[in-house]
Amino acid sequence: MTAVVCGNPRPGSRTLHAGLHVARELTGSEPDLVVDLATVGPGVLDWSDPEVTRLVARVAAADLVVVASPTYKATYSGLLKVFLDRFAPQAGTGLGGVAVAVMVGAGTHHALAAELTLRPLLTEIGATVPVPGLFVHEQEHDDPAAYDDWLAAARPVVTRLLPLASSGVPA
Amino acid sequence: MTAVVCGNPRPGSRTLHAGLHVARELTGSEPDLVVDLATVGPGVLDWSDPEVTRLVARVAAADLVVVASPTYKATYSGLLKVFLDRFAPQAGTGLGGVAVAVMVGAGTHHALAAELTLRPLLTEIGATVPVPGLFVHEQEHDDPAAYDDWLAAARPVVTRLLPLASSGVPA
Amino acid sequence: MTAVVCGNPRPGSRTLHAGLHVARELTGSEPDLVVDLATVGPGVLDWSDPEVTRLVARVAAADLVVVASPTYKATYSGLLKVFLDRFAPQAGTGLGGVAVAVMVGAGTHHALAAELTLRPLLTEIGATVPVPGLFVHEQEHDDPAAYDDWLAAARPVVTRLLPLASSGVPA
Amino acid sequence: MTAVVCGNPRPGSRTLHAGLHVARELTGSEPDLVVDLATVGPGVLDWSDPEVTRLVARVAAADLVVVASPTYKATYSGLLKVFLDRFAPQAGTGLGGVAVAVMVGAGTHHALAAELTLRPLLTEIGATVPVPGLFVHEQEHDDPAAYDDWLAAARPVVTRLLPLASSGVPA
Repeated sequence: MTAVVCGNPRPGSRTLHAGLHVARELTGSEPDLVVDLATVGPGVLDWSDPEVTRLVARVAAADLVVVASPTYKATYSGLLKVFLDRFAPQAGTGLGGVAVAVMVGAGTHHALAAELTLRPLLTEIGATVPVPGLFVHEQEHDDPAAYDDWLAAARPVVTRLLPLASSGVPA
Repeated sequence: MTAVVCGNPRPGSRTLHAGLHVARELTGSEPDLVVDLATVGPGVLDWSDPEVTRLVARVAAADLVVVASPTYKATYSGLLKVFLDRFAPQAGTGLGGVAVAVMVGAGTHHALAAELTLRPLLTEIGATVPVPGLFVHEQEHDDPAAYDDWLAAARPVVTRLLPLASSGVPA
Repeated sequence: MTAVVCGNPRPGSRTLHAGLHVARELTGSEPDLVVDLATVGPGVLDWSDPEVTRLVARVAAADLVVVASPTYKATYSGLLKVFLDRFAPQAGTGLGGVAVAVMVGAGTHHALAAELTLRPLLTEIGATVPVPGLFVHEQEHDDPAAYDDWLAAARPVVTRLLPLASSGVPA
Repeated sequence: MTAVVCGNPRPGSRTLHAGLHVARELTGSEPDLVVDLATVGPGVLDWSDPEVTRLVARVAAADLVVVASPTYKATYSGLLKVFLDRFAPQAGTGLGGVAVAVMVGAGTHHALAAELTLRPLLTEIGATVPVPGLFVHEQEHDDPAAYDDWLAAARPVVTRLLPLASSGVPA
């Protein structure tokens, strides 16, 4: 099962489209679950909200999670972090599968943020993050060429690891 | 004017107490503004919320802001990041003064997070962050000795820089 | 082919032993190449040194490289960085295979350095770095238990990816 | 006393010129000590080398140290790190004054390296690093305009803190 999580506070964002593109290109099919956090509402802040708890469980169980964030303050968005703070490997809600980090930003000078901030965050919540974080300039978000080199390197690595769950890899 | 911003989702947290202690010890008096984000409510997610807009303006104008966060996923909390995402130097709402980064965490193995993640974030939103980020183990949060070495080094540096605003330093 | 690179300026260091242990446990056999940088001499600084050039080529061609560093100044050693600065994916001398990051340090408060500093460096020089960086306290460097949880999670991921070269993954 | 340390393996580099420019603009005069590491030779690797030990002592005693590095592998050079590994606040050879981080690079996509990698390193070796790390594109290294915004913000902060030594700030 493949999930896309988008941390942009605007629904239907370019960030979401970047995440969807990566998911489709890595797997060859539509993602099974799309969590556009802009549409979740204030429940994302409420640690007892049942809808968010259910989303966390579904994302945690995915074989592949594409996590896409806009670049705010040279790193991922607060909205994304609020959601990811719910995932706890020690509590059985870590990311049990493979994750990839995608960031969309207005400035190339923030490109390292995908590798230095979002990838470590996904690792910390339990995911296997086997390929470098991808930074996409927002003006190129709908240009497949902006993804092609990264996809060519990432696809065979991700493909070999899917699904991790069946190999008994601990979350 | 001194402000304390606390990013713990629980009101009156140990994180808040750590931030208050640092503010008092750096300035010798009570902070003028305390923003305990746990008490702000879902408006923190709403970019048009007038109360949050007002808080942002007051914090942006402070001479000294002590930003205190719990350590979640080896970095600052999502709740804190949601609030700090509002500050934009280019839009006149950057932090115009001095800021210091304080993190409280359960594990010493996350100690570098204050310096490697929270301090750069405060820099990015415009603050002058002249001293290293402080990491306090949560079991020592109410032990003044856990702060003393850091305070001895930080106090003279911060004191020399206050207030920055009157020197005409750009935000 | 498996290589171990050790960045400790002292030959035969605890760092080296940690790297060797990880290599043996991940592959079930002795590494084919061990580069103990302490024994290379000042040629490591000379970009035209033929011995170092040859070492770079052999490491670049390895299927698996275990890169082990002492923790100096909250990150990898300068000696290691001098050597790794030679690897350039664009020039055909990137790490073409899988790499893992191992750091040995005296202080648990530097544990994040493996994930936040050494892993991104290995990624930057072309390696596929599929598992989290491992930090080992130097007092536990010869205690297998200090490695076991990490090895249990890392071994199946690394095993699935070896060898990468035969899959035609670009370096 | 002001020092410039340059971590480029080529003598007289653009990196050195960037560091000299920053030092002159921050202080209004020529630096008292220039350490162009490319000219130091293999002694930089020898922890008992008396010339390097003397250089370390002089840099450690400076009121202001401008540390300039080329961008190698998305971070500072190994040559610079080898030299900075010698500085140990606990051993009385930390940087006792103010330091600023300057990086020169060929790619804007590495701009965050100055703030996320070099500034924390200078902090770790004891320096007060009050202003953001500066990244300069190598094609603009001799264009004063590439430095002006940063200098306008940094100068008043650095000026207020010089000299730190006379205030008794612990190293």
